[in-house]
Amino acid sequence: QIDSARLWGTIHETAQFGATPKGGVRRLTLSAEDKQVRDWFRKACESAGLEVQVDALGSMFGLRKGRDMSKPPIGVGSHLDTQPTGGKYDGILGTLAALEMVRTLNDAGIETELPICICNWTNEEGSRFAPAMMASAAYVGDFTTDDILSRKDAEGVTVAQALDSIGYRGDAPVGRLKFTSFVELHIEQGPILEAEGKTIGVVDSGQGVLWYDGKITGFESHAGSTPMPLRRDALATLSEIVLAMESIARKHGPKAVGTIGEAVIAAPSRNVIPGEIAFTVDCRSADAAIMDALDRDLRAAVIEIAARRKVEVQLDLVWRKAPTHFDPKLVDAVENAAQQLGYSHRRITSGAGHDACNLNTVMPAAMVFVPCKDGISHNELEDATQTDCAAGANVLMHTVLALAGV
Amino acid sequence: QIDSARLWGTIHETAQFGATPKGGVRRLTLSAEDKQVRDWFRKACESAGLEVQVDALGSMFGLRKGRDMSKPPIGVGSHLDTQPTGGKYDGILGTLAALEMVRTLNDAGIETELPICICNWTNEEGSRFAPAMMASAAYVGDFTTDDILSRKDAEGVTVAQALDSIGYRGDAPVGRLKFTSFVELHIEQGPILEAEGKTIGVVDSGQGVLWYDGKITGFESHAGSTPMPLRRDALATLSEIVLAMESIARKHGPKAVGTIGEAVIAAPSRNVIPGEIAFTVDCRSADAAIMDALDRDLRAAVIEIAARRKVEVQLDLVWRKAPTHFDPKLVDAVENAAQQLGYSHRRITSGAGHDACNLNTVMPAAMVFVPCKDGISHNELEDATQTDCAAGANVLMHTVLALAGV
Ligand SMILES: NC(=O)NCCC(=O)O
Ligand SMILES: NC(=O)NCCC(=O)O
Repeated sequence: QIDSARLWGTIHETAQFGATPKGGVRRLTLSAEDKQVRDWFRKACESAGLEVQVDALGSMFGLRKGRDMSKPPIGVGSHLDTQPTGGKYDGILGTLAALEMVRTLNDAGIETELPICICNWTNEEGSRFAPAMMASAAYVGDFTTDDILSRKDAEGVTVAQALDSIGYRGDAPVGRLKFTSFVELHIEQGPILEAEGKTIGVVDSGQGVLWYDGKITGFESHAGSTPMPLRRDALATLSEIVLAMESIARKHGPKAVGTIGEAVIAAPSRNVIPGEIAFTVDCRSADAAIMDALDRDLRAAVIEIAARRKVEVQLDLVWRKAPTHFDPKLVDAVENAAQQLGYSHRRITSGAGHDACNLNTVMPAAMVFVPCKDGISHNELEDATQTDCAAGANVLMHTVLALAGV
Repeated sequence: QIDSARLWGTIHETAQFGATPKGGVRRLTLSAEDKQVRDWFRKACESAGLEVQVDALGSMFGLRKGRDMSKPPIGVGSHLDTQPTGGKYDGILGTLAALEMVRTLNDAGIETELPICICNWTNEEGSRFAPAMMASAAYVGDFTTDDILSRKDAEGVTVAQALDSIGYRGDAPVGRLKFTSFVELHIEQGPILEAEGKTIGVVDSGQGVLWYDGKITGFESHAGSTPMPLRRDALATLSEIVLAMESIARKHGPKAVGTIGEAVIAAPSRNVIPGEIAFTVDCRSADAAIMDALDRDLRAAVIEIAARRKVEVQLDLVWRKAPTHFDPKLVDAVENAAQQLGYSHRRITSGAGHDACNLNTVMPAAMVFVPCKDGISHNELEDATQTDCAAGANVLMHTVLALAGV
């Protein structure tokens, strides 16, 4: 059993890095606050006797030796970055539970056959730089390191510049450090476990993701003197697209979601009809055929709306992540651990993307979920109980011990 | 007849202050660019022998003596500020035509019975500070000077600070300098004159204006893991409000317009359902009963949408300007001038607000319109011909001469 109070203590200690007045965390990837939590994590790893490596995209790895150093370690962990108005658990729980596991094994003097490597992946959130889970995607070869290094945030700062500015561009080539398998603990970020009174979600699948960059070019004109029928209003166009995305997703019941998360009017003024808007779209399903339908229906809706309103709409797919089917043996291992520890559990699909989804494409991977209050995440009010967090950390540890061998 | 080439020259000379790559002007009120054009205007007035006064809200007045200095002058002018992506004519034509008139009278050695005062009113556009036509509204007593001085732009800078920063907080108390009447030349900013092939619009009325500040409070949540039916999406809510405003205005045919010009998501992120949005509404009609209907229908729509989507929507009326009915005698004077000069003309309603609309509440006022290309305004592509600008300036001058007496 891990030390529940110690785990809880680290979660709340690190929540000070980027703490917001509403009790959340604003710790955008590679920001000054991210550097603070990274420095804390590096020190904690070193104190726990781990050998820390940082790769060329800033992902951090803390290696605990095993008896058999000829085999790659079992990877465990998550991320420490957050959304602009994020919570204290999303990613953090999984990273600090991995640290807590190491501390527990150290205290108990437990050696494992295989080494264990605890991980903090760079830019899981995808809020500052696109795509999400950027570093683990490069790790598995979906993108080259150079491609990712050149990605820019809204201010035009590249990943390379951001890494250098906080001193976290490491020496280790991305993907060089291999793992035997990977396990990640995370809050569910959805309402199912709480609603069903289950403690552990045994994650067997994850939704695929479509991300688009959109741009609407209408025509700026005077809000007072331009007759309604002559307008080419970019915001009214966006409004139709937002509602179209909503109804396209709803058609698939619980099997799809669609969201416009960002929308910026180019030169906004109270008395000017918006002429240009940049926006982003996020839509998802665990079913690849539904993802195709979402893409097709969204594009068709956009074309119809643009033609009718005589505006131009550009819609570029910037990221497509296929649905994830986690490794069946690893999923069983998670389920066995939950079962043996006596926690109530159920199989579950992840609505969110996770680094484990990327890693699963090149190695066996699996995930453990614990409930979060009202299913709320990507919100400063995100919450989870100490008991559930500890339960998740115990399932994580026992899964890892089963994989690493004692 | 005014000097058409000289007028055209000053329009293009001053267009360099805040010139944009697309051929427009960005000269927000009380900005560094506004200071440049103000300095230019002050010097031009002084060179033309005018006595320049600046009032406590930065409005500039250039006085040309008349034979009878016991009577208040005839006011003539407009504004030199622009929208963020504005044109070269909106306001500028009217101000520089007033200057051109003085130059023409000087050159011809024409004295008038009454003095003439040419004006550059502060913040006509209303883009940086609300409301529009702020300084002329204070001039007529709709707001106190202190109230206006404390208004803030989006960055929190007050009118007082902005005036001080460019050195244009003048000594003259607002409203002290009285006028006998006021005439303003402006581009139409709408498509009617051009469509009908008329050179001069004799403006007999102006639309009333309703401006609102709105705020939507939904709930931020994860774009991937939050089921569609559980969302409280602030952007989807705004989208319904935008489309509702559009159809509410359309119900009144050509007699009403409605626009959402600004919308800002509080902490935007691709994979976060927008939780909070600030927005503005501008809706107008020349008919007071329709203005009441717009207000009532918009509020009812907002209440219905907010309740159905379980979000909070705050909608505050920040400005209400009643429809304008210009002084019949002055309107006739404009029409006579157009007639005598042989320009084709028609009576017209102003879709936009103008300083003359405010001044009309305390003195006889009227306006002259000239066509602009495709009715486009509040756009960098705003355009007008030299011939039409000169025609408008001639009508302006002859109207003023009729009022001031030669
Ligand atoms: N777990 C999580 O919130 N990841 C962010 C990436 C995404 O799913 O949008
Ligand atoms: N003339 C003009 O564009 N005025 C700006 C104020 C408004 O009508 O919105």
